Amino acid sequence: MDVNVAHEIAGVELAAAEAGYKYAQRTDLLLARFPQGAETAGVLTRSACASPEVERCRHLLSQDSSAGALVVSAGNSNAFTGGKGAAAMTTLSDAVTTATGTTRGVFVAATGVIGEPLPAEKGVAVLDEAVSRLGREQDWTAAARTIGTTDTFPKVASTQAVVGDETVSVTGIAKGSGMIAPDMATMLAFLFTDANVDRAFLQEMLSAANAKSFNCITVDGDTSTSDTCLLFATGAADGPKLIGWGDPGADALYAAIEQVCTDLAKLIVRDGEGASKFITLHVTGAESDESAHRIALSVANSPLVKTAIAGEDANWGRVVMAVGKAGEPADRDRLSIRFGGIEVAKDGARVDGYDEAPVARHLKETDILIEVDLGLGDGRATVWTCDLTHGYISINADYRS
Amino acid sequence: MDVNVAHEIAGVELAAAEAGYKYAQRTDLLLARFPQGAETAGVLTRSACASPEVERCRHLLSQDSSAGALVVSAGNSNAFTGGKGAAAMTTLSDAVTTATGTTRGVFVAATGVIGEPLPAEKGVAVLDEAVSRLGREQDWTAAARTIGTTDTFPKVASTQAVVGDETVSVTGIAKGSGMIAPDMATMLAFLFTDANVDRAFLQEMLSAANAKSFNCITVDGDTSTSDTCLLFATGAADGPKLIGWGDPGADALYAAIEQVCTDLAKLIVRDGEGASKFITLHVTGAESDESAHRIALSVANSPLVKTAIAGEDANWGRVVMAVGKAGEPADRDRLSIRFGGIEVAKDGARVDGYDEAPVARHLKETDILIEVDLGLGDGRATVWTCDLTHGYISINADYRS
Repeated sequence: MDVNVAHEIAGVELAAAEAGYKYAQRTDLLLARFPQGAETAGVLTRSACASPEVERCRHLLSQDSSAGALVVSAGNSNAFTGGKGAAAMTTLSDAVTTATGTTRGVFVAATGVIGEPLPAEKGVAVLDEAVSRLGREQDWTAAARTIGTTDTFPKVASTQAVVGDETVSVTGIAKGSGMIAPDMATMLAFLFTDANVDRAFLQEMLSAANAKSFNCITVDGDTSTSDTCLLFATGAADGPKLIGWGDPGADALYAAIEQVCTDLAKLIVRDGEGASKFITLHVTGAESDESAHRIALSVANSPLVKTAIAGEDANWGRVVMAVGKAGEPADRDRLSIRFGGIEVAKDGARVDGYDEAPVARHLKETDILIEVDLGLGDGRATVWTCDLTHGYISINADYRS
Repeated sequence: MDVNVAHEIAGVELAAAEAGYKYAQRTDLLLARFPQGAETAGVLTRSACASPEVERCRHLLSQDSSAGALVVSAGNSNAFTGGKGAAAMTTLSDAVTTATGTTRGVFVAATGVIGEPLPAEKGVAVLDEAVSRLGREQDWTAAARTIGTTDTFPKVASTQAVVGDETVSVTGIAKGSGMIAPDMATMLAFLFTDANVDRAFLQEMLSAANAKSFNCITVDGDTSTSDTCLLFATGAADGPKLIGWGDPGADALYAAIEQVCTDLAKLIVRDGEGASKFITLHVTGAESDESAHRIALSVANSPLVKTAIAGEDANWGRVVMAVGKAGEPADRDRLSIRFGGIEVAKDGARVDGYDEAPVARHLKETDILIEVDLGLGDGRATVWTCDLTHGYISINADYRS
């Protein structure tokens, strides 16, 4: 993903500022302002212990209010902070309403330490200065860097689609490198498009794209209290409003949204805490797509599979173990497994004349492909994950997240 | 657990031998012979990819055949080895039938590398010599050592109970230190008693004890293809046969069985691969015991919680995260959390005047206590687990299991 080709999104005004929530000498507050008529779709964590920011987004999405602004704080998630945290969230969003002069909804997100109320006054103090810089050239890399915490690189994805006679753009940023698992897996992701889309249809497209992207990645099986994915459509592009799948260009726009979601999801996995390998896991031949998805996640979340890949060990026996424990229909004697396209096990046993050398060579690469065929039906799923390394332990035994 | 007090079990004849399956200069084959009338109960892995040994035990348990012998092989699990593996299992068990002269069922178990057929001829070659040593003094530590693989110490537990006028004994051995998770979590565990018990009631007692012990431990959430727990009752003790909970001494015998299962389960967790901390997790106030159990496992299996404990970090925010992702009823604003008996969070936020110093002192200890109260109902559960360390990565990135 070449971040130099991040397309400008007409109608989006961006600014980053140094609130100093936790980090010094870096931007940690991202502000975005949207024009009259901008619509928003969102997918939020299913955690029973969601942050007040997540609850506010859920509330706004359930209302008919159009999007006025987005403010993202990095370094403090404001999760599990009780009444003080809720008050801090309100203080910051009210200040954004005032500073940006919007009369519409202010979406909020925060990421970082759990359990300490967000020092909202630090964000409030830099808002006027941030507003004064809104409208300058969009710097998506700087925006992505602003929302990061343990991320080791900024995550930006962008593409275009032709809708009717217009070329529209979709650009997204994301952060997250641990506590990544489905339901939903994003940590934070924000997508922006200048397309003109009806709110309900925008939500339908985002939900579908999310199921194919952020819900198909896992780093450690842990789901955050703050996971948030929002898609803002400014409608700044010319052309009629898209209201359903039958409209000209709807498929193209959806493909662009799914592409950006998938690119961002893969970038999150590539930045998985301590990750040294990017693993693509294809499961086929399951009884259903849902069953394939659950089996794929069982393999992708297995610490024993992930440590074997870290050790560049063609330990397909652990893949068998993880398929077996998934609790899904499987028949040992129909199972086949490939590493890097090379069949290693078939019909319940290692293949005859198995040669480990080419498999071992594949495992020395950075991008690992594991294919599992259940031999039962037509169900299929793809999941992306990373290996489990000493680096993950080092990052998480020390970092207070 | 002082292994010096492992009680002798009348009627059990034991011998260990060096088959050389994988390891040199250590015993790796355990043989046990049982007298006429010995009964067996068992709990086996729910993996859909179970080994032929597991399938044979399942078959024998479904029959009315009394137990004649047990043979355990260490170093090769014989799992996912197709027809060759099934034949190897039959070769070894047939040889045990011949060598021991039994006319009853031969139970089998194997643990170690997956995917390579068990070299049964190596076991067969040492059987006659092993049989010649049956009946010598029972050495339970040697027996436990014989069935181990990556275990760092032998796991033995033993206790006694008064049944009617008789004192009966229960002694168990186990192996396992990774790939440990419920459904079921044992790796291999074998219990022996001289009590005289009806087969159906023996099974009822083992199933109940298993639910309170092996199914309450987790090291890494991974369930093996070979998990096996068997309980052999020789009936060598005097007294009438126990057939139900109302019989005198039935409760005492059950308590002894549960005690041995729990002691062995905890020993497995203490030997969790790379573990530096033993973690007891109490969940109370859940909507039901089942819900409490699932929440406890969500916390116990969270890599982020386990790495925080490894880092001696009182990161209760990650406990909140793991409760939130469990998919069970929870209310952020009623949740309270204690570390080492010290309340750190209550009613959805950190406690007022929180002092981290005593919590930090507790985390420097080896035995860590985490208590979570949901504030919703009377459901409760206890789960034991260990931390996730660099040692786990080192062991599993290199060991071909």
